[in-house]
Amino acid sequence: MFTGGADGNGHLPRPRRPRRGGHGGGGIGSPPGQGPSTVQPYPAAPPCTDYDMAYFKAYSHIGVHEEMLKDHVRTSTYRNAIMHHQDLISGKVVLDVGCGTGVLSIFCAFAGATRVYAVDASDIAIQAMEIVRENELSDKVVVLHGRIEDVNIEEKVDVIVSEWMGYMLLYESMLGSVIFARDKWLKPGGLILPSHASLYMAPITNSQRYHDSVYFWRDVYGIKMSSMMPLAKQCAFMEPSVETISGENVLTWPTVVSQVDCYTIQAQELETITATFKFTSMLQVLVISGTSKNP
Amino acid sequence: MFTGGADGNGHLPRPRRPRRGGHGGGGIGSPPGQGPSTVQPYPAAPPCTDYDMAYFKAYSHIGVHEEMLKDHVRTSTYRNAIMHHQDLISGKVVLDVGCGTGVLSIFCAFAGATRVYAVDASDIAIQAMEIVRENELSDKVVVLHGRIEDVNIEEKVDVIVSEWMGYMLLYESMLGSVIFARDKWLKPGGLILPSHASLYMAPITNSQRYHDSVYFWRDVYGIKMSSMMPLAKQCAFMEPSVETISGENVLTWPTVVSQVDCYTIQAQELETITATFKFTSMLQVLVISGTSKNP
Repeated sequence: MFTGGADGNGHLPRPRRPRRGGHGGGGIGSPPGQGPSTVQPYPAAPPCTDYDMAYFKAYSHIGVHEEMLKDHVRTSTYRNAIMHHQDLISGKVVLDVGCGTGVLSIFCAFAGATRVYAVDASDIAIQAMEIVRENELSDKVVVLHGRIEDVNIEEKVDVIVSEWMGYMLLYESMLGSVIFARDKWLKPGGLILPSHASLYMAPITNSQRYHDSVYFWRDVYGIKMSSMMPLAKQCAFMEPSVETISGENVLTWPTVVSQVDCYTIQAQELETITATFKFTSMLQVLVISGTSKNP
Repeated sequence: MFTGGADGNGHLPRPRRPRRGGHGGGGIGSPPGQGPSTVQPYPAAPPCTDYDMAYFKAYSHIGVHEEMLKDHVRTSTYRNAIMHHQDLISGKVVLDVGCGTGVLSIFCAFAGATRVYAVDASDIAIQAMEIVRENELSDKVVVLHGRIEDVNIEEKVDVIVSEWMGYMLLYESMLGSVIFARDKWLKPGGLILPSHASLYMAPITNSQRYHDSVYFWRDVYGIKMSSMMPLAKQCAFMEPSVETISGENVLTWPTVVSQVDCYTIQAQELETITATFKFTSMLQVLVISGTSKNP
């Protein structure tokens, strides 16, 4: 059997969490049941698919939330941003799209929000309700267990907060739902956190990984397996890998290949991303030229 | 998004490899196309299911084989066992069931086997053919790309070698295929490596893990989330975890709950495993009794 890759601490990594699913974009249209109105039409709710259900189910698992909360860079950055904008949150109404355990909603309550609507379609919302109660914030934080596309929060909000980012920022991200919420529930001039997002790219190298996974096949317990090397290279370069690397692995300054302005982006813009970019090596190569003299 | 659990070295673990699938047991019956015979009837080949196909596909991935080979305990133990039994392998005919990259087959060739039939239904068998060629063993090692239940190796063998073990030894293991191969291809008195397997159980503890995953919820960035603790405990105790632990985590001497004699086990015995067992704590508890005197 295979052991799944023990690390130096003697315990195996947890299974990789499933990727976050997309929710589809909404079309523009009037919501059902409404008569003529002078308000800007907002998107009709897209249908809830089996894919969506699997996505929500994945997020009901406690381990996913434990990992996200333990991502200190992520969680503390949101906390800092919320506190930094306290003047725009205190006394205001907030909407948390995909609230999970309710952590961002509670940060907003701590920052003085009058009311926070915490929305999540996953069963984790049930836990969020308990957490809100435990922190005696039931008068401020209202947890709604359902899709943002379906819930009725009955008032426009001053602030939308959401941790929506997916792999490579946009792949399978929740941004479509944030756009929906923005168009349906955010007051004109309202605040969105985060307001902008940028996707950077840079070529990298990892000699150690290459050695471990490609050169490894040259000699395996005295058996030559170099015929595996082409396949090993193909897998090494073709498969996506979600990881943290060090600066020394990065070969050039990163370049922005996509920028999202959460105030203006439209769902259709998320369907494809195309960018041209150029990288300039930070390494210098010494070229030695010379002439040979034949006597 | 979630990062999948960065470890202290700054890189994330690889995705967990899919579990090995079962191949189903074979029924007893004559193979098609054969007339009356005096030989012992052997199992008819069970059908190849979609599940089997997915299983084979999973094993075509190079990473799985890299991990198994890098499991030094596993691979070197097989090598040592093969060399230890060199007198029973040298000059003999061997069958490797589920050969993968062909490592065990080549060890047998190094030990002097006259011929080794290396069988694997996964596409990794194509790589195995290249590896055999690279090591100039094409005259000794014959790689057959197909299920052991389907291939015709045309002669009975003296030795069967296989690395068939699954999670908890038997869950989703390949043992059914080894049984099939034994009954169809092994000469009377032939050698099977491994010949026996034992499944041990012991209660364990892991205070650090409990602290990290359960007590963690008491205070999360200043937010009380102890309402998550029951769910956290449930997940911690109910979910299987494949890992390496240290001796200090083990609370009693391990007890054997299942033993397999590969020479005699039948496929039907694998369908359920039932065992009674008793554990005796290695910890001593000091009980202090006393009386209180009230003046």
